[in-house]
Amino acid sequence: MIANTPQPPYYAVIFTSIRTGVNDDYDDMAGEMFRLAATQEGFLGVESARNKIGITVSYWQSPESIKNWKANTQHMLAQKYGREKWYAKYKVRICKIEHDYEL
Amino acid sequence: MIANTPQPPYYAVIFTSIRTGVNDDYDDMAGEMFRLAATQEGFLGVESARNKIGITVSYWQSPESIKNWKANTQHMLAQKYGREKWYAKYKVRICKIEHDYEL
Repeated sequence: MIANTPQPPYYAVIFTSIRTGVNDDYDDMAGEMFRLAATQEGFLGVESARNKIGITVSYWQSPESIKNWKANTQHMLAQKYGREKWYAKYKVRICKIEHDYEL
Repeated sequence: MIANTPQPPYYAVIFTSIRTGVNDDYDDMAGEMFRLAATQEGFLGVESARNKIGITVSYWQSPESIKNWKANTQHMLAQKYGREKWYAKYKVRICKIEHDYEL
């Protein structure tokens, strides 16, 4: 459940969102996007939690692997539905992981 | 609820955790840490969500402001309790936000 990422440096996309009340196909599409992301080159893992807001952090080998995922045809359709019906508001932050430690 | 952060670059701490079943004082301490973090120099905002796992992302002006917060005396006590009783497992990732966009 906590992503088993390699030694830094690597990259992450922090996606923070507030949902609308519209649910049609959201769960199916979200599940499909998790499955599809995991097959992409450079994918390292993903973590996700939601109560009042949702936070999904996906981890990637390089900025290029993030760009390729953003431009993936099926993912672009999911992003379009996201903007049009599922999300009231979101913020996407692209970052470079420089250091990590764990318990 | 979505942190109103400035233009990149800035920094973030991604704290992903799995809780133990132990709750004593956890909610009080968590609330106190959110309040205290917000008073620290360089603090830019925080986002948090939990269901199966918890993800808390705090945003900071510089690596130094992150180091100072980690070394804060009250926060160090909270970290000690975290390791000893509240968290079964966690991972902390320090990163530099290079780019962001929003809906």
